[in-house]
Amino acid sequence: MPLPEKKIIERIRRAAAKQSTTLVEGIGDDCAILRPPAGQELLVTTDFSLEGTHFRREWHPAESVGHRCLARGLSDIAAMGGRPVAAFLSLALPTDLPQSWVDGFMRGFLRLADRHKTVLAGGDTSESRSGVLADIMVLGYAPRGRAIRRAGARPGDILYVTGALGGSAAVLERLFQPQINADARRMRPDSKRHFFPEPRVAVAQYLLKRRLATAMIDLSDGLSTDLAHICEESGVGATLVEPLIPVAQGATLAQALHGGEDYELLFTARPKAKIPLEIAGGSVAEIGWVDAQRGMRITGRTSKAQSLKVKGWEYFQSR
Amino acid sequence: MPLPEKKIIERIRRAAAKQSTTLVEGIGDDCAILRPPAGQELLVTTDFSLEGTHFRREWHPAESVGHRCLARGLSDIAAMGGRPVAAFLSLALPTDLPQSWVDGFMRGFLRLADRHKTVLAGGDTSESRSGVLADIMVLGYAPRGRAIRRAGARPGDILYVTGALGGSAAVLERLFQPQINADARRMRPDSKRHFFPEPRVAVAQYLLKRRLATAMIDLSDGLSTDLAHICEESGVGATLVEPLIPVAQGATLAQALHGGEDYELLFTARPKAKIPLEIAGGSVAEIGWVDAQRGMRITGRTSKAQSLKVKGWEYFQSR
Repeated sequence: MPLPEKKIIERIRRAAAKQSTTLVEGIGDDCAILRPPAGQELLVTTDFSLEGTHFRREWHPAESVGHRCLARGLSDIAAMGGRPVAAFLSLALPTDLPQSWVDGFMRGFLRLADRHKTVLAGGDTSESRSGVLADIMVLGYAPRGRAIRRAGARPGDILYVTGALGGSAAVLERLFQPQINADARRMRPDSKRHFFPEPRVAVAQYLLKRRLATAMIDLSDGLSTDLAHICEESGVGATLVEPLIPVAQGATLAQALHGGEDYELLFTARPKAKIPLEIAGGSVAEIGWVDAQRGMRITGRTSKAQSLKVKGWEYFQSR
Repeated sequence: MPLPEKKIIERIRRAAAKQSTTLVEGIGDDCAILRPPAGQELLVTTDFSLEGTHFRREWHPAESVGHRCLARGLSDIAAMGGRPVAAFLSLALPTDLPQSWVDGFMRGFLRLADRHKTVLAGGDTSESRSGVLADIMVLGYAPRGRAIRRAGARPGDILYVTGALGGSAAVLERLFQPQINADARRMRPDSKRHFFPEPRVAVAQYLLKRRLATAMIDLSDGLSTDLAHICEESGVGATLVEPLIPVAQGATLAQALHGGEDYELLFTARPKAKIPLEIAGGSVAEIGWVDAQRGMRITGRTSKAQSLKVKGWEYFQSR
């Protein structure tokens, strides 16, 4: 059984207490108070992490659930080139949940928050009638008018992704195989991509500072889905070059194209822009280009282009 | 069955599309982008509305659930004297929920948002395995350094509340009585206090502009609980005068003292401050004073003061 609500809040408040130049008041009043620096715009994102939909307690250690919960929000801030500053956590817990699980969740959450200088500034707690429900809100800053939108891609732009794709989906696929021991599935060296994905905050800020990206999105729903978002919002099409797509070790091409939760960045840049092969310690790969012609295509280096269908996962579809 | 996630987002996006001077980008990118006006601080609050914990679908019409969901956040902004500007809604829906319910929820939500010039600027949607889960985040502005905190009450300050108390708890009490027909219970004229509470945003801004309040909180958990918060954060005690407490029609003194969800304001002011008996169309009543001596007391006009215990509702306690 978790501690009473007031004690949980007290414990979180102590754990979250941090110096912050932007945060005037954190947990302990009706609202948190933030003081945005002059010339900065505010970025806001919210993301659910619901047991059964986004994670399973028998698969995901508490630290992983806390980490992934915050990573989703940080990755959205990264997708705009922003600097994350504060997080708000709403947490509904079943009454039979051990407090040690809550502690593990908070450990995973706060460790990632610390690494990204993000203060836990507030939230809500409640009782849940079924499973752990978390909702994360992350606030970030970006210089006025400089946030990298989905809508900025132009025909002729080059498509890039960070890191390798499909790794998270490959781990998830293994988790669905009941004949493999749960601990063994979790302990494989490449499992970190799924359990502790690292949002690409530093890469995104590098791109924003140097005005290198024309459009950007984070790969949370899968390459085909997220590329479609950029195409829709920019009013363009795109062509991927199959052999250029960085498929994660142990993943298939299909997982790299359609698997979600890699939390890498997909961005476009003008053909003349000099994009390094490595930014902030992570690899960057050219994977295709932006077309005036709507729709998405995939081609081999020499073969004819085929239509690329959106096959990301929608939560409302049963798996 | 609700519409697929993408269609729900599209529908909400259309309904929420509004001109706003502060909102640069709303729904449709990885983050919403807000441009805070110079000299303003940012207020942030989050609140769960979970089926079974905060509402019941057999008791609360969809419009009421949407209204109450947003009202909780607006009331927190009011509690600091802030001006609400944007809301973010995370909504997890059971697959067997009729779309008409979602439409009703959004109607109630957006009608209240409109009245308070609050833009629905983003959020998240997901599938829920049990019941409707909503999490609301509201952003507001307050002039730099001027937000009214819980911590500002000083001995000798006078205690005030807006409106009448206990009305929401009285309705809830009736809802728990199975022998009364559900529609009849809902239709009573005083039921609005529970189903469609009106957050006191205008009153709060009046107090902030004129620097009248030294501390403030909204009455979401009940007078005894919320007064205790002011006392704790301010390092003071308080005495209530029983016959001065404005008990809502149909409510008991106990409901006025301990019942939650009235969303009225409790504030303190210096004895010399001129507090009108009516602000922005709502009544304001003096109900006691702030003491240097810790703890809370309640007294008749002439009788001896008795200790006042905190009896608000904690969600983790079974009801």
